Amino acid sequence: MRHYERVDNPLEQLSTAELRARRSLKWRAYDRDVLPAWVAEMDVPLAPAIAAALTAAVARGDTGYAHMGRLAEAFCGFAQRRHGGWLPDPGRMRLVPDVNTAIGAVLPLVTGPGNSVVINTPAYPPFARTITAVGRRVVASPLRRDGNTGRYSLDLDRLAHDLGRRDVSAYLMCHPHNPTGLVATRAELVAIADLAEAHDVQVLVDEIHAPLSYPGVPFTPFASLPHAAADAAVTFVSPSKAWHLPGLKAALAVAPGDDGWATLRAMPSGHGAGLLGVIAGEAAYTDADDWLDALLAGLDSNRRLLATLLTERLPGAGYHPPDATYLAWLDLRALGLGDDPAGALLARGRVALAAGPSFGPEGLGFARLNFATSAARLAEAVTRMAAAVD
Amino acid sequence: MRHYERVDNPLEQLSTAELRARRSLKWRAYDRDVLPAWVAEMDVPLAPAIAAALTAAVARGDTGYAHMGRLAEAFCGFAQRRHGGWLPDPGRMRLVPDVNTAIGAVLPLVTGPGNSVVINTPAYPPFARTITAVGRRVVASPLRRDGNTGRYSLDLDRLAHDLGRRDVSAYLMCHPHNPTGLVATRAELVAIADLAEAHDVQVLVDEIHAPLSYPGVPFTPFASLPHAAADAAVTFVSPSKAWHLPGLKAALAVAPGDDGWATLRAMPSGHGAGLLGVIAGEAAYTDADDWLDALLAGLDSNRRLLATLLTERLPGAGYHPPDATYLAWLDLRALGLGDDPAGALLARGRVALAAGPSFGPEGLGFARLNFATSAARLAEAVTRMAAAVD
Ligand SMILES: Cc1ncc(COP(=O)(O)O)c(C=O)c1O
Ligand SMILES: Cc1ncc(COP(=O)(O)O)c(C=O)c1O
Repeated sequence: MRHYERVDNPLEQLSTAELRARRSLKWRAYDRDVLPAWVAEMDVPLAPAIAAALTAAVARGDTGYAHMGRLAEAFCGFAQRRHGGWLPDPGRMRLVPDVNTAIGAVLPLVTGPGNSVVINTPAYPPFARTITAVGRRVVASPLRRDGNTGRYSLDLDRLAHDLGRRDVSAYLMCHPHNPTGLVATRAELVAIADLAEAHDVQVLVDEIHAPLSYPGVPFTPFASLPHAAADAAVTFVSPSKAWHLPGLKAALAVAPGDDGWATLRAMPSGHGAGLLGVIAGEAAYTDADDWLDALLAGLDSNRRLLATLLTERLPGAGYHPPDATYLAWLDLRALGLGDDPAGALLARGRVALAAGPSFGPEGLGFARLNFATSAARLAEAVTRMAAAVD
Repeated sequence: MRHYERVDNPLEQLSTAELRARRSLKWRAYDRDVLPAWVAEMDVPLAPAIAAALTAAVARGDTGYAHMGRLAEAFCGFAQRRHGGWLPDPGRMRLVPDVNTAIGAVLPLVTGPGNSVVINTPAYPPFARTITAVGRRVVASPLRRDGNTGRYSLDLDRLAHDLGRRDVSAYLMCHPHNPTGLVATRAELVAIADLAEAHDVQVLVDEIHAPLSYPGVPFTPFASLPHAAADAAVTFVSPSKAWHLPGLKAALAVAPGDDGWATLRAMPSGHGAGLLGVIAGEAAYTDADDWLDALLAGLDSNRRLLATLLTERLPGAGYHPPDATYLAWLDLRALGLGDDPAGALLARGRVALAAGPSFGPEGLGFARLNFATSAARLAEAVTRMAAAVD
């Protein structure tokens, strides 16, 4: 059952008091006087189809071990509708608890001891931790940053160099990119595939933020390219970011190509995934497009509002609106808050951002703001940041 | 809010049609004509306090990343009420997604490459898999089995030998024991602690089934002993077995002693646990004793009923009712069904038990039956088993 009526902006539906009643990490990690805008949780109610599916599962006592159900088929339908007609084989997917756990399980299958893995910096902090935890080395390949606009792009020359290193056997791509919100063009992805093939580098792609690409930004799944490197790729997807389900623990590792699937079948199986995550994910991918569109409209408005708010209240901050997702990567170097502005903003402004330096050396003087909240709370966050600077 | 009114037997509340609507592993792994009695899920609705907490969380959209909340304090309250007044320090517990994941994270901290880990066989199959996955060796230390009664007990002489081996650095104890249901006496636990101390062996204890010890069977948590080996022990607990929550992914690693806590603090942290598991677990440990008592009464009746049913319909089967939990370890060697009776029972009787050989060589000719279901379905399972033998 699809609902076609207009859906209200999910970002404007919960009061701060209602959010403070939540027991999730975002709302419990800091004191009550802190406005949290750090971890990737959204201040939205669940999409109605998801809430209904979960409530029914609880009523059934359906809290046993996870079975993959039709999550793979549901994702395929979503990918076909929303990612340019891509229709991966649902039989070539594995149920996993979350993206980072799956990356940690796949890396040892595609790299050897002492090998290195390329990531683009600034980088989502768990990437380096996961690579190191399985005994591999991190090769940081910085994105290019336009000094005038603050816009990030892929640095293909640098990538060519880094993927060509003898010790490098895998490239862990974050696409759309956290924290910069960068979405690559199809031509750039083909260039990456050529490099990976030329240097015999395994591509792993974290596409968790793909459903949150903004209207007008075409998202191309790497594995959808007709290319040997795409055939070998393993892609990680999850409904957790776009539908606010990170605490339910169900994601997919996807490998429609023969070579990628040969890798993925070898992944050890476990009971780590959560059944309610599977049930919620099926509803998300099947019956919540309208809710996602309403969310994207609200986020699109917020990514612009943030630009206005910063210009008005914190003119020293550098910000380029992202192509996808609700994370704003802020250049705060001109504000005199030191290497870790998030620390000062928390202490003096009582607003919690993610610490820039945790994303690598390129993050010194930066902080990441999550704008998946109401316009009023977003304005309050910027006001608190400004107060911390004054 | 505690409810003191009488609670109906949770095992008699769901129809088979309602259970077949579930999407969990137990109900989806086999064809619809198979009666499932294998994996450790119960055929019960959720305790009312748990269902209410989960439904409220869904309504709040409280599906973000897990925060430990008051799960540790809730477990302490439960342990004090139900495990002989034991009051471990809630500050010395870590939130983990599930017991097996936590064992896999702790083992590398307490053993070195090439070291061996003792387990009692027959053994819950993931133990050996987890030990091997982290690069350690398994030393199988068989339990003693009384050939007349089928009752299992600890073989302390054998354990003394195995814990004394030079390559052994840890003992992974399952207590209460899966699949035999054995609960050790306090004196036996002290003897184990003495052996562990004498041989400098780290004790890890999986006490996931402890809340399901039957009335009249006193359960002593290993870490509650005043003993150096108990002080160093790490214990794994979870509400998942006793309140039917395995798909929600929240458990605790517990180390009240100084040495155990020093180990546990070194465990890498991750976001693997599920928020709804924390919320459900707090309700389970705080506000569901009455439901647990009703469940235990129903299980106690089933463990006796199973003896009667087997005597009547499958007299060749050997069975000793367990001291704890809802798993019956059946000696089917006299039935002529070969090394893996569960295979024949599934093929010919359309009833799914857990395969004995997966528990180690002592499991050849055995199968494990889950009797956490209605009396009618339990009778149906035995009828199907008998039909497979005829
Ligand atoms: C790029 C990226 N990958 C993975 C994750 C982890 O998500 P999950 O824990 O839901 O798998 C996140 C969360 O923010 C993310 O931004
Ligand atoms: C002895 C034992 N340990 C651990 C587990 C795993 O439980 P969970 O996945 O809920 O942590 C089970 C499940 O049956 C078990 O019997």
